Amino acid sequence: MAEAVRLGEAARGRSAPNPNVGCLIVSSNGEIVGRGATALGGRPHAEAIALDRAGRKARSSTVYVTLEPCAHESPRGPACADLLVKAKPARVVIAMKDPDPRVFGTGMRRLRDAGIDVKLGIGRKAARDSLAGWLTRLRIGRPRITLKLALSIDGKIALPSGESKWITGEDARKHVHLERAHSDMILVGRGTYLADAPRLDVRLPGLEDWSPKRALLTRGEAVDGWEILRKPEDVYRLHDVNDLLVEGGSATATAFLSADLVDRILIYRAPIIVGEGKSSFGYVGLDAIADAHGQWASSDGRRLGVDRLEVYERVREA
Amino acid sequence: MAEAVRLGEAARGRSAPNPNVGCLIVSSNGEIVGRGATALGGRPHAEAIALDRAGRKARSSTVYVTLEPCAHESPRGPACADLLVKAKPARVVIAMKDPDPRVFGTGMRRLRDAGIDVKLGIGRKAARDSLAGWLTRLRIGRPRITLKLALSIDGKIALPSGESKWITGEDARKHVHLERAHSDMILVGRGTYLADAPRLDVRLPGLEDWSPKRALLTRGEAVDGWEILRKPEDVYRLHDVNDLLVEGGSATATAFLSADLVDRILIYRAPIIVGEGKSSFGYVGLDAIADAHGQWASSDGRRLGVDRLEVYERVREA
Repeated sequence: MAEAVRLGEAARGRSAPNPNVGCLIVSSNGEIVGRGATALGGRPHAEAIALDRAGRKARSSTVYVTLEPCAHESPRGPACADLLVKAKPARVVIAMKDPDPRVFGTGMRRLRDAGIDVKLGIGRKAARDSLAGWLTRLRIGRPRITLKLALSIDGKIALPSGESKWITGEDARKHVHLERAHSDMILVGRGTYLADAPRLDVRLPGLEDWSPKRALLTRGEAVDGWEILRKPEDVYRLHDVNDLLVEGGSATATAFLSADLVDRILIYRAPIIVGEGKSSFGYVGLDAIADAHGQWASSDGRRLGVDRLEVYERVREA
Repeated sequence: MAEAVRLGEAARGRSAPNPNVGCLIVSSNGEIVGRGATALGGRPHAEAIALDRAGRKARSSTVYVTLEPCAHESPRGPACADLLVKAKPARVVIAMKDPDPRVFGTGMRRLRDAGIDVKLGIGRKAARDSLAGWLTRLRIGRPRITLKLALSIDGKIALPSGESKWITGEDARKHVHLERAHSDMILVGRGTYLADAPRLDVRLPGLEDWSPKRALLTRGEAVDGWEILRKPEDVYRLHDVNDLLVEGGSATATAFLSADLVDRILIYRAPIIVGEGKSSFGYVGLDAIADAHGQWASSDGRRLGVDRLEVYERVREA
């Protein structure tokens, strides 16, 4: 299942409006006979691709898939549950149930009705993390919103002059490009657009073509080729975006935080002290320190060269 | 040796002007027969205490000591090398040579001349870390200076109103008390003194009596019972302080950073966003981001409840 999650994760940022599912098929003698992930734009689905690769070797195999196979036919193709029934695997291992009400349990039932052994819940947490963007959109009707910042120890994003190149080192900047590749859309404010527009792409070997759509938060003029958001709440009309990456600057970050429209924060922390300089955020509505607690939980942390990535996730009541 | 380092570390902050040495004596049949650490104020030395505990069981034993035993007699007691020769252990394992020119190698030579097997360098890094305050004072004539800050994700120390209670949680605050207990002196600026003076003590069970001396950085009036520093450079006259802990606030921290008089930074980082608020530091002399790099290296990091301790050490050319 770890491999299926990895396949699905590789498709994150390119499968919207569909989920970035991963699928692995292992034949009865232990050979990997098919791999698949949701294709660019959402079709074909992971299972369809993996089954196509496996061909007749899918018979009596074990299929690992990160999300319950779909059970509703669409003009764009047959339901994956039906494709699986036709391929006759011995077992289908599913990381998580599809919360989409058109599927919820129906996919599994169809497999079981055809005599296929179905296991649910293996690798659920990893699958859920990887599918977080799509799940957020399904649940609350907007993309999962990730705020990214490169900060000094003392939380500065730039010198008073605006100079910010480079707070972080090469490894951290490479990781940002990877994160861009896994986002359907990146968003900046006008200041960052004017300063950095040419840079808002993905510059990793082999990933050059995966640059996400671009959006601008501005009350000013529209810009050709950029989605224009007048206010953070406009994210609710981004129907084909699972993962939105907000890249700054400070005013844009502050607007999203004030609107409580940030789900995840990536801090690329450099071991430097800036001192007098530009702060990460302005007023975000906080009037007492006690109110700041319990909103964010540290969910990951790792070294990236001399820098460190800190990941925080918004704690929301269920 | 790990146990000897632990014994010495427990004495850190209370052994000045002497080093916080630890000593463990293991008899030839593997029994621990003596433990010692430099006593309050620097005497007796660790070896003298451990040898006293071991008595005749020190004969043919292995002695672990974090620093080369002293070889110069003093009006305050005999040299440890001589005490060891008299006790006749089979072997003395030493973590590091004493860089004090009155000892440097002499202690080891005296042991070897008496037919004792001497091993040097076991656990050197851990011993050096634990003795860093004393080593700094010996090398450059001032205490090792540690700057401590409780910060939000975005590097704020307080709201615009000055409210800062509490940025961090209980576990982090307990760790601060432990760090105070391991400092010979703590220093604050006048603002922190006025706001927090009663709090600048050690409030850990069993450690209440270990409160360090207190110092105030101010150009204003002296305060009874507090060492007064007119400027950061006055640390060069603190002859009986190995470890100095600078606790803030922002102006004091900025003054020490600007004077390049900080060796180590402890950041207690809370998973909260403050937004508009008081920054950690003012202008520290930085005019280009590139110049900020390479000055600090992350040397440790760990969770403390929901918070995280980040340790940075100043990178200085040898």
